[in-house]
Amino acid sequence: MAKVNENFLKLPGSYLFSTVGKKVKAYQEANPEKKVIRLGIGDVTLPLPKAVIEALHRATDEMAVQDTFHGYAPDLGYEFLRSAIVKNDFADIGVSLDVDEVFVSDGAKSDSANIQEIFDPASRIAVCDPVYPVYVDSNVMAGRTGEYDAATGRWSNVIYMPCTAENNFAPAFPEETPDIIYLCFPNNPTGATLTKEELQKWVDYANHKKAVIIFDAAYEAYISEENVPHSIYECEGAKTCAIELRSFSKNAGFTGTRLAYTVVPKELELEGVKLNALWARRHGTKFNGAPYIIQKAGEAVYSAEGKQQIAEMISYYMNNARVIYDGLKAAGYTVSGGVNSPYIWLKTPKGMNSWEFFDYLLEQANVVGTPGSGFGPSGEGYFRLTAFGSYENTVEAIERIKKLG
Amino acid sequence: MAKVNENFLKLPGSYLFSTVGKKVKAYQEANPEKKVIRLGIGDVTLPLPKAVIEALHRATDEMAVQDTFHGYAPDLGYEFLRSAIVKNDFADIGVSLDVDEVFVSDGAKSDSANIQEIFDPASRIAVCDPVYPVYVDSNVMAGRTGEYDAATGRWSNVIYMPCTAENNFAPAFPEETPDIIYLCFPNNPTGATLTKEELQKWVDYANHKKAVIIFDAAYEAYISEENVPHSIYECEGAKTCAIELRSFSKNAGFTGTRLAYTVVPKELELEGVKLNALWARRHGTKFNGAPYIIQKAGEAVYSAEGKQQIAEMISYYMNNARVIYDGLKAAGYTVSGGVNSPYIWLKTPKGMNSWEFFDYLLEQANVVGTPGSGFGPSGEGYFRLTAFGSYENTVEAIERIKKLG
Repeated sequence: MAKVNENFLKLPGSYLFSTVGKKVKAYQEANPEKKVIRLGIGDVTLPLPKAVIEALHRATDEMAVQDTFHGYAPDLGYEFLRSAIVKNDFADIGVSLDVDEVFVSDGAKSDSANIQEIFDPASRIAVCDPVYPVYVDSNVMAGRTGEYDAATGRWSNVIYMPCTAENNFAPAFPEETPDIIYLCFPNNPTGATLTKEELQKWVDYANHKKAVIIFDAAYEAYISEENVPHSIYECEGAKTCAIELRSFSKNAGFTGTRLAYTVVPKELELEGVKLNALWARRHGTKFNGAPYIIQKAGEAVYSAEGKQQIAEMISYYMNNARVIYDGLKAAGYTVSGGVNSPYIWLKTPKGMNSWEFFDYLLEQANVVGTPGSGFGPSGEGYFRLTAFGSYENTVEAIERIKKLG
Repeated sequence: MAKVNENFLKLPGSYLFSTVGKKVKAYQEANPEKKVIRLGIGDVTLPLPKAVIEALHRATDEMAVQDTFHGYAPDLGYEFLRSAIVKNDFADIGVSLDVDEVFVSDGAKSDSANIQEIFDPASRIAVCDPVYPVYVDSNVMAGRTGEYDAATGRWSNVIYMPCTAENNFAPAFPEETPDIIYLCFPNNPTGATLTKEELQKWVDYANHKKAVIIFDAAYEAYISEENVPHSIYECEGAKTCAIELRSFSKNAGFTGTRLAYTVVPKELELEGVKLNALWARRHGTKFNGAPYIIQKAGEAVYSAEGKQQIAEMISYYMNNARVIYDGLKAAGYTVSGGVNSPYIWLKTPKGMNSWEFFDYLLEQANVVGTPGSGFGPSGEGYFRLTAFGSYENTVEAIERIKKLG
């Protein structure tokens, strides 16, 4: 008799964005004359860069002709894209990688959910709190997380590393020793970063404990300050302890186009087994490559025109981030993030909790954000705004918030 | 201390197509004047249909403009594509499905590898022998298959259902009771089909045993005979015991474009838990939707022009299949498949085993096929040719084989 994977049944409902949507809908229906501005979304809004559009058209034309038609792609990615990644994202910042250390995929969500498969089912994971939910949920499905405590919002077998204003949103080494450590910097949702020295300490810690760091660098393109590492491999010894996840979503606007990659260095071994070989096997068995036309679009991101157009997009979003950050500061809010990240993280005022502030902001300023508590218990009392709206809406939203006094 | 998933280490190397490639390369280098014809590939060769190309261009243009740009897709697929699937692939053959029983993905390889996740880790699987290797390998990685015996090529905890000439390549009910049954019809690699009555018996068996059938219908478009079911849901009671996998790869040429879908009926429950909800949760947690432009390309497959162009492609390949089937028959071979499938399965002649016949065909006729033993022990003594080459090459290859006498 077939039975279901009981681990799936342990997952609590994921109500954050659906609750946000319902509340906004109800408010808008009750107040149809109000113009609600959404600064809660994590999705990009600018169109794809011209160089990417042109590459998509060219590649589509290739697919129309037998001589240039492309069938099954190499499971691990086309050489042309992997080479462009190795050169532009790594060699240019002094990190040397081989092409076969780069695995092209359909998205960082897939990669961050699937990467746990290559580890022992009994592995103990450590995550920041607040955190992007996929790291934990994928491990729940794999049976690693123990039982859920609805009162605390925590799993019995997960090691949580609180990130709050008290530690400048940088996690401390946990008391218990984890096997796998998920780190995301620049961080979603807090927008915080680690300096190179701070990240080096994590690399040293992982090498010392023989733990593996899953380093999610999806927001790398938003780094504006010196001394904030773009890749964990800028740190000495990272190749023996770290896997890095990268995405085309937030730099090049690929949220609906789907392309990402994962770096698994060949030096990364556990008891003599190369994780690079395991991930290659996982990719080869369970994935059939990203579409040819999308990989050509990804290649165009690294062209001279592509780079310039992407820099302009990021600059547009980061200008929004500045508007939000500066405006909230001027209005007396305690704000962080927004400097190396499209996310602005603020302390809710007047003793309101995250959801109370959500309602307050929606009703008083007609502005939508995301309650910090939705990302984990340590997000309670915080709130996330994002820079992905239009400039005009962003300015207006901040003006309204300022007027609340 | 981090450890690897030991199940990955149990996987034997997958050498079939790399060994084929090496042998062909060595022969070609030693005999540069010979024209080698490849009838071993499972990849399509005709370009994408015009309707699909036009849809890709249109959708790409939408992505270039802010007002029509598409960010994150719905995890489970766009409504426009799911509706087209429900109408054209199911309602038109008398099968009624709801849109939310259809889950759009990046490929049937991903789906067939990932579907096992929603089942108990202790589930016992049954597979045909020979078989598409992904069904077994994904369960090896999940720890369900026991130990591998290199001498027999079998896993200790997998139930094998031999498919040979003796049973007309249709599996018999196994002696041991499985929890999950993988069936692929029209079959890869044998090209065999089940009649509706035969498939109904499997549905009844599964409902009786409370087992779940994973029905891989990737080659459904090649069915030419009456009474061969296009969907398992044509059988009574299938919605309470079967999941169906479909692909755009082999009908519409999407092997390098990547689009597929899985049907999980809402009536399919195990101990009161709906598998539809579990698969939705899996998709929502670990997948971020197929690209918008690719889903628009998939929609075009169901347009009037798209349907006609696809029918022409399939007709081209099936004409090749007829050339191979009839030619081999005329040359005295024992042949099956090829009528409702792009795969032709032949008994190796003169007491040769699969690899001996591979060498013989390569050296004597300069034709490349795939040794049946590469798909499992019961494939020994068989050989696969495919209809995906050009018509001219297919005709020439068969002429050469005929001349061998």
